[in-house]
Formats: sequence, C-alpha cells, structure tokens
Amino acid sequence: MSEYTAPLRDMQFVLNELGHLDHVRRLPGCEELGSDLVDAILNEAGKYAQGVLSPLNVSGDREGARWVDGQVITPKGWREAYEQFVEGGWNALSCDTTFGGQGLPRLISALVEEMWNGANVSFGLCPMLTRGAIEAIELRGGDLLKHTYLAKMISGEWTGTMNLTEPQAGSDLAAVRSRAEPRDDGTYRVFGQKIFITYGEHDLTDNIVHLVLARVPGAPEGVKGISLFVVPKFLVEADGSLGERNDVRCVSIEHKLGIHASPTAVLAFGDKQGATGWLVGEENRGLEYMFIMMNAARFSVGIEGVGLSERAYQRARSYARDRVQGTEVGVKSRDKVAIIRHPDVRRMLLSMKARTEAMRALACTVAAAMDSAERNSDRQQRELDQAFVDLMIPVVKGWSTEQSVDIASLGVQVHGGMGFIEETGAAQHLRDARITTIYEGTTGIQAADLIGRKIARDQGRAIGWVIEQMRQVTHQLLAADDPSLTAIAASLGQGVRALEQAVAFIVSNYDSRVAAVSVGAVPMLELFGTVVGGWQLARSALVAQQCLKAASFEQDFYSAKLVTARFYADHVLSRAPGLAHTLIQGGDSALALGDDQF
Amino acid sequence: MSEYTAPLRDMQFVLNELGHLDHVRRLPGCEELGSDLVDAILNEAGKYAQGVLSPLNVSGDREGARWVDGQVITPKGWREAYEQFVEGGWNALSCDTTFGGQGLPRLISALVEEMWNGANVSFGLCPMLTRGAIEAIELRGGDLLKHTYLAKMISGEWTGTMNLTEPQAGSDLAAVRSRAEPRDDGTYRVFGQKIFITYGEHDLTDNIVHLVLARVPGAPEGVKGISLFVVPKFLVEADGSLGERNDVRCVSIEHKLGIHASPTAVLAFGDKQGATGWLVGEENRGLEYMFIMMNAARFSVGIEGVGLSERAYQRARSYARDRVQGTEVGVKSRDKVAIIRHPDVRRMLLSMKARTEAMRALACTVAAAMDSAERNSDRQQRELDQAFVDLMIPVVKGWSTEQSVDIASLGVQVHGGMGFIEETGAAQHLRDARITTIYEGTTGIQAADLIGRKIARDQGRAIGWVIEQMRQVTHQLLAADDPSLTAIAASLGQGVRALEQAVAFIVSNYDSRVAAVSVGAVPMLELFGTVVGGWQLARSALVAQQCLKAASFEQDFYSAKLVTARFYADHVLSRAPGLAHTLIQGGDSALALGDDQF
Repeated sequence: MSEYTAPLRDMQFVLNELGHLDHVRRLPGCEELGSDLVDAILNEAGKYAQGVLSPLNVSGDREGARWVDGQVITPKGWREAYEQFVEGGWNALSCDTTFGGQGLPRLISALVEEMWNGANVSFGLCPMLTRGAIEAIELRGGDLLKHTYLAKMISGEWTGTMNLTEPQAGSDLAAVRSRAEPRDDGTYRVFGQKIFITYGEHDLTDNIVHLVLARVPGAPEGVKGISLFVVPKFLVEADGSLGERNDVRCVSIEHKLGIHASPTAVLAFGDKQGATGWLVGEENRGLEYMFIMMNAARFSVGIEGVGLSERAYQRARSYARDRVQGTEVGVKSRDKVAIIRHPDVRRMLLSMKARTEAMRALACTVAAAMDSAERNSDRQQRELDQAFVDLMIPVVKGWSTEQSVDIASLGVQVHGGMGFIEETGAAQHLRDARITTIYEGTTGIQAADLIGRKIARDQGRAIGWVIEQMRQVTHQLLAADDPSLTAIAASLGQGVRALEQAVAFIVSNYDSRVAAVSVGAVPMLELFGTVVGGWQLARSALVAQQCLKAASFEQDFYSAKLVTARFYADHVLSRAPGLAHTLIQGGDSALALGDDQF
Repeated sequence: MSEYTAPLRDMQFVLNELGHLDHVRRLPGCEELGSDLVDAILNEAGKYAQGVLSPLNVSGDREGARWVDGQVITPKGWREAYEQFVEGGWNALSCDTTFGGQGLPRLISALVEEMWNGANVSFGLCPMLTRGAIEAIELRGGDLLKHTYLAKMISGEWTGTMNLTEPQAGSDLAAVRSRAEPRDDGTYRVFGQKIFITYGEHDLTDNIVHLVLARVPGAPEGVKGISLFVVPKFLVEADGSLGERNDVRCVSIEHKLGIHASPTAVLAFGDKQGATGWLVGEENRGLEYMFIMMNAARFSVGIEGVGLSERAYQRARSYARDRVQGTEVGVKSRDKVAIIRHPDVRRMLLSMKARTEAMRALACTVAAAMDSAERNSDRQQRELDQAFVDLMIPVVKGWSTEQSVDIASLGVQVHGGMGFIEETGAAQHLRDARITTIYEGTTGIQAADLIGRKIARDQGRAIGWVIEQMRQVTHQLLAADDPSLTAIAASLGQGVRALEQAVAFIVSNYDSRVAAVSVGAVPMLELFGTVVGGWQLARSALVAQQCLKAASFEQDFYSAKLVTARFYADHVLSRAPGLAHTLIQGGDSALALGDDQF
C-alpha cells in the first residue's frame, strides 16, 4: 500500500532554483527566512503529513464523519491528529504575528498546505476554513471580535467556518435569505438555514466560530444587502471562557461522493430565540468582505488540486513500478515487466507528473506575488503584483482543480481493474478531487470571473503582462540553442499566440456579445491554464539545462525536468490552438438552441 | 428526481434518416424488418427500461449485491425485474433462431442494449455477459454443449459468465495459470482462482454457465496454451434437469467504486475434487475463441458508454431546467432564471448531448456493418464490412467509454454542489461509468489494438476507406452551400487531414519505432474517435438540413441536429490537430525517463 511522501525535492526546486524564495526574502519582514529555516519547516511538515495525516486518509474515508443527535463525531484518530496539529503550531503558520501567528509568507505556507491536502484533504479542509474566518476578522472585525477570537483561532484551539450557501442561494449569493435582527446591546439575533458548511460541526475543538452571511431589516435586495456576522457555537465570556450554547444547531450532514471524513453540515440558526451574532465591519458590506476571504480560499482550493494530483501520481507510480504484467513492446525479451515499462502507462504517469509540477510552480509564482503584493515597499510593484494575483486566482483555482479530477481519474486507469476496487485507494482520490471544481465557486464561476473582471475590464492589460513574460521565456529557450528547448519554445510560442488571439477576441467582443463570449469562458480558462503551465515548465527546463551544464550532481533530477517540460509541450500545450478556436468560433451554437431543444 | 427516458426520437433518426435500417433491411433474413415492427420493439424496450430497470438503479446502487456464505443476494427487486426480462424475451433478441433466439440484427439490439445501460448498467451487465457466453458456445461448442446449454441461456433461464482474469493475469492473459486435467470420460477437472467475474454468482437464475480459460497438461507457455471450458454451477443431467453442485465457489465479491448492484466475484474452481468442465472447440485455442466473444463484448461496453452518457445528460438537462439561480448574462432583466439559460451550462449540456449523439450514430454505423459482415450475400462486401468493424471496435469501446466518464463528470458539474451529494444521483453515473474504460480491455489495450493490428498491419487500408468516406461528406457539406454546413466542413476537413497525418506517421514508423508510436496510441484513439464522431454528426447535419428544407414538421428537432453538429465541430473536432501533434511529436519524451526518474 502506497503512503504519501512529501515531494520535498520538487518543492525546493520551485523555491530555490526557480528563484521565488530569493524574491520573497527581499520583502520587508521576510529577511530572516533562510534556506535552512525553510527546509526545516518543510521537513517537519512533511513528517507530520506523512506520519500522522496520511495514515488516517483511508480510514477516515471508510469511517466518515457521523452525525448523532446534533453532534458530529469525526473518524478514529482525528482528534489526536488535530491536537498534534495545534501543538505543532501548524495552524498559525501564515497568520499575523499580533495574535500569535508566525507570519510566514504565503509562498511557504502554500507548500505546507499542499502537503496537508496531499496527505489527507478531508483533514486539510478544517484549518483551511479556519484561516478564511481568521482573515475576515483580521481584516474587517472590530477590536472586540479580534480580542475575543483571534488568538484562539490562530492557535487552532477553535476552528472557523464560512456560512454562505442556502438551499436557494448557491452560486447566486444575492438570493441569501438568512436574517439578522439588531438587539439593543449591539448584537444581532440571527435566523436562517445554511447548507454545505464544511466542518460546520465536529468534535475536534471546544468552540466553532461561524462566519455567517445574513440580511438586516430594511437591507437592499441582492448582494448589496448582505452583512457578515460572527456567530460562535458557544458564547464567549469576557474572561475568554466559554459561556452558554448559542442557538445554532447541526441538523444533519451530507452523504457525499468523497471527502467523507470532512463533515458537510446543514446548520439551523435561530430555531429558538435567535442565534447571537456580532456584526463584522459595516452592515450590507458582507459580500465584499466575503470576497476578500474567498480569494484566499479559492487559492487554497487550487492547492488542494495540486496536493491531490501529487498524491494520485505517487500512488499510480508506485503501482506501476510494482505491478508486473505483459512483456515490453519493441524489445526482444519475453520477460514479464513492471507496467511502468509500457508506453501508455509512461504516458499516463508523465501526464500526471508534468501537470502536477506545472500547477505547483504556478501556484508558488502566484503565492510569491501575493507576498509581494502585501509586503513590498514599492507601491507600484504592490499594485502590479496584486493585479497579477487577481488575474491568476481563478486559474489556480479552476485549472488546477479540473486537472486534479482528470489526474486522479488517470490514476485509477493506471491501476486497471484494481483501480475500481475501493481497497486500492486510487478511487478515493478521484472521489475526493471531484468536489474541488465545485466548491468556493465552480469552474464556470472562476471562468466568468477570469474573462469578465480579470481580462475584459482592464482591456487585457494584466494578462498582456503575463503574455510578455512568456514571450521572454520563449526567446530565452531559443537562445539556449538546445534541440529540446527549441521544441518547447515552438509549442510555448504557439500557445502564447493562441492565447493572444483569445484575449483580443474577449476584449473586442465582451461588451457587445457577452453571452457568446461567456460560452468560451471555461475553454479560455483551460487555455490560459495550459499555457501558463507550459510557461512554468519552460522556465524549469531552462534552469534545469543550466544546472545540467554547470553541475555534476543530481543529473537525473534535472534531466527529468527537461523531459517533463518537453512532454508537457507535446502532450498538453498542443491543445492550445484548438481551445482558442473553440472560444472564438464556438459561442453562437451554444446559444442557438431553445431550452426545449436540448 | 429525474427518471430515464428512452431517447426514441434520436434512435429513429439514426435508424431511418441516417439510412441504417434501409441498409440492413436489404440483407438476407432481415427483409421482414418493417419500421412498424422496429418501432414496436424499441417502444416496448423503452417501457421496460423506463418502468422496470430505471427505478431500480438508485436503490440497487445503495443496497448493492451482498455476499453471504458463498451466496450472492442481488438487491431488492432485481429478481422480479430479471423474471420480466426473461418473460419479455429480451435476452433472446439478437440470438440465433436455431435455439429460440429472435435473430434480430445487431443494429436493433444495439439500441435496445443502450436502453438497458441507460436505465441501469448494473443490470444490463448480466445479459451482456450471458450473450458473450452464448456466442462462444454457438461458434465453437460441440453439439452436446449446444443442446445442453443454448436454449436455456438464450431464453435467459440460465446466465453466463466469462472467466479470464486471475490475480497475476489481467491485461496479460498469457499469464493464466488455472489448469484443466482431462478425465477419461472426456470431461476435465478444472482448478484455479478467477477474479473480477461479473455476475459470477447471483440469485437470479437456477444455474450459471461459466466460460473459463485454463491450461491443459503440457500446453505451451503463453497465449497459445490456453483452452476454453464450460463449467456450469450445477451439472446438467441428460434430461436437462439440474444435477449436483459443481466444485466452483464464490469466495467473495468486490467493494467497488461503482456498479454496486453488479456482483464482481472471486471464484474458486476445484477446491475439492476439481470442477467438472467441458472443452469448447479444440485445446489451446481458447484465447482465439475468447477474442471472438471479446469483440462483441467490447462493442457492448462501448454501448454502455453511450447509455450512461445519455442518462447523465438527461439528468443534467432536467436539473438545469428546474434549478433557478442567478440572472441571465447580457439581458437587462434581473429576474432569476433556470440555470439552463447560463452560457456555461448550455456549453456543458451541448457538449454532453453532441458527443452522446455522435457516439450513438457511430455505434449504429458499426452495428449495421456487423450485420452486413455476417449476412451480406456478397462476399467481398462482407469482407469490407468486417474490416470496418474490426477497425472500429476499439474506437466504439475506447472512445465512447472515455467520453462517458467525462460526460458523467460534466453531469456532476452541471449540478454544482448538489452533484457531489449522493442522493442527487449524478455522482452514481460517474462512479458507474468509471469502470467502462477498464474492463474488456483498458483504453490503452484498445488503442494498442487500433494502431497495431488495425492500422499498421494493413498499412492503413481500412482506415483509408473511412477517411475517404469522410472526405466525401466534407464535399457534400460544401456543396450544400449553407454557412453552418460550410463551417462544419472546415472543421471536419481539418480533422480528416490531422487523421491522415497521424495514419501516415503510424504506418511509416510502427515497425521501426513501435514504442514511440505506442506512446501516441491513446491520443490516436481519441483523435480517430473525435473525427469519426464529427463525421457522424456532419452526416446528421446534412440530413437535417434537407429535412428542414423539405418538411414543415419537426423543425425544432432538425434545427437542433444542425446546431449540435456545429457545436461539435467547434468544441470537439477542434481538438484534432493538437492530438495529431501529440502522436507525431510526443513519443520520445515519454520514453526518455528512466523508471527511477518518475
């Protein structure tokens, strides 16, 4: 049975050889971030992920979270693992230092997060949601909220949730109906039902801090009338101790395709006198605050895609090395071989590997830009970085998660018939990955955000900057005068041209033909992801080629980087022109059918 | 909750408007096959599929097949449904008339099969395997076997199984170790363990007839030393009554990702004195016989892909029409709309619909060719048809099933968060579809068969004929002088050129660089499927355009056909050049890595 191994070497490659750590280390507050410290953090995180979280992944899936009389019982071993998580200080990694966080840059915490998700995505969801709630309170909460909640949430003693969805309000939050009535003491009585609340109830901690969207009396219709509230499971006394139970109740949890160990709760607020809630920031600005968090959460779900892909790849690779079946094609010997020798199995494994490494490098590029956008002393650079981050979030989220579903499915395929048997473990990765393209905004929502707010609105300026970066890499590849890099340059160049055509089409047509352009939104997201993934691997290939020339050590690692980039160029980047065609030509037909003609 | 509806209108379109029924009706023995009779058969099959099988699909998934002390208990309602199946004569539909079959052409039975699979693929597997076993006995069994088994199996009173796989022998049947020792009375004692045996044990019938691969003493190593045996669960007396229990035992059944109601058995043969078996045909020719059946079985699994895709599409369409969420893009009104109005949802639905219709039309084209290959009085035509069938089987199997996984996954996506909740039903289609790319030969096996035995071996002759057919359709599209058809012609033409390049590459390089060409086998299968799917929809568009001009009725149906073909051209066919690039350029990189470099 294959266990998860933290992909430390590739993480170090992205941090060190691709230069992101150097970049982040030049930011104010990050000067102390030596390579030794980073290595130590990644090593320790890897040990915890491998030693504690990974062994609970299968048992957690089988046992699942259980609802008993309004309580949710997490699977065996979950509580102990969470205790260790808190004791290890993992929850506080990227949080602000004011309330006990370690203030590490996103670049590092993103890689650590990848490990949690690679080892056990159902577990990783709990701190992921807590971070979102922390961020909302940090950014928009008043002093009372900060002092009451932040220290405990940052340490991980209490967890947090995000309560957006209602039965009639999924992607469309304008339809939120939960309501909050002001009391004289400044608190609110919150009423309503929320669904799909990840870790909305559990037995890991003494308290759970719900962040809840609701409407105050007289609020405007739609998204401009939604406010954000903190509604703790247990009220907190002035001295920080826990007081009485709030009027929020877990009605049930869902029976889902995957992430069985992560409880997905239906929460009823205010069945009795109303749940006591505290307003975050100002009334009617809740959605705006939620979107701040949502960007972080979307990035994190993209990281889930990376972690799940890595895990599925490792399992498939391990099986392909062990499983002996058939003889090798094109070879005289009739000896039976491990299936990793079969060309199609190699193709599947390399497809998994190449895309996973591309996604990881892309996520770290974005994470480093997040750090710079937050910390850089140069305001103009901060703005540039933020524009890049805003552009890339829907890609990290949408593209990495779509890839993770396909990669996990390929992982099943590598196993043949055994892949369909639950005991093998490959199927769980597919079941778990399948939610990632849906929650925190479906791929369709990400793609609409990408073409509308991120490309059309600034007339393609931000994406133009990325295209320029990629063109420079193409030139560098050609200048290296190496046949393999030249081939990569050809594919990347073709991809970049396809992307340029796509951007020009969106910018010219978005206002006049928004529906037709929107038909191509997801193909555009796939196109952009495909090309920026190629950019990342092309950069990796350039570095690897230099290292191969310069050093005599780790030749296998660097030559694999070159081969992987070449594989991606021919097997993934090659799809780019077709996707541009689909975007540019394919809008009208999808709109031409009457609803009854489907 | 959406229930399955047999897609009768589209089936009639394929039969009548695309001309397959006319074609088959000209074959000897099919003259009586009037449209009324065919309609009646499809209608009755549709009623049974909708009324009996579909309601058991979800409950069957939840309850699953259960193993109790060597017995397998099928889910509630399964026995009654199977009784009705037998009473309705459905099992005998396409079987030879000598032993009670109805002798209907494959063209009709393929569509009926699609309904079983669309309604309940776990159920459909039972008669599918029985047909395979019947075929083996019909084609290679002696008189004793035929008289003992065929009538009961054709009626459906007894079912059949195919016992190929062993723990060490999956895709590689050369590794089969089960053995058969001849007795003096002409029977054999069979020993060995078989795994992944679909309906290897169940409570639907009094007897089960296992077809088992095993080696006789002194048999050559490898695939040339495998023989095929009939091993019934209960021995059959001379008068046809059931005698004693044979020495075959169901050790366990598997816990699988999907098709929960279909028992996947581990069977132990000969734990005591040896299971009594009867040789089919000659010793050491078992694999050859198995391959005869396997072609039929592979085609049937392709049909599972079509049925599952149709089912997933219907469920998604139904949800998209009902679910109200958000406002319509590009429209002034702020009224909430059903999500079918959202461009990305339309794209997903049309992608599901277009590919499903392409797959159905392709399967029927192949089925009609099967009928002609069997029945045509012109020997040369029979050979041509057989070559076409042989070429297309891996595509119907490999391409339709790969599409079905993707289509079922899109079906989940259309449902958003609800798609991940098991109660919704969308996830089951994905879980069920996931096996279809694996059993009866993985996609990799299909693709290897396609490029090796089906393309390289005849130097691209058979596929050249298909390319010529497609080129003629391109000319017809252009001649019609209609902007929509011209656009389809451009995409189809581009696809055909990509395919030609791919074929030329395979023919030139297969012998000298078989491993590198094999890396592109699955991309080639996807390319071929993509282009022949476009061919089928282009033909549909031509017919639809003529009907639109000629008739005033069913304008909505025909215009939808045109739009669907156009959508496919821009959203699916557009991938063809990229796939050809992958095949032609992408072989070496996958071979360049050492096994340790993965």
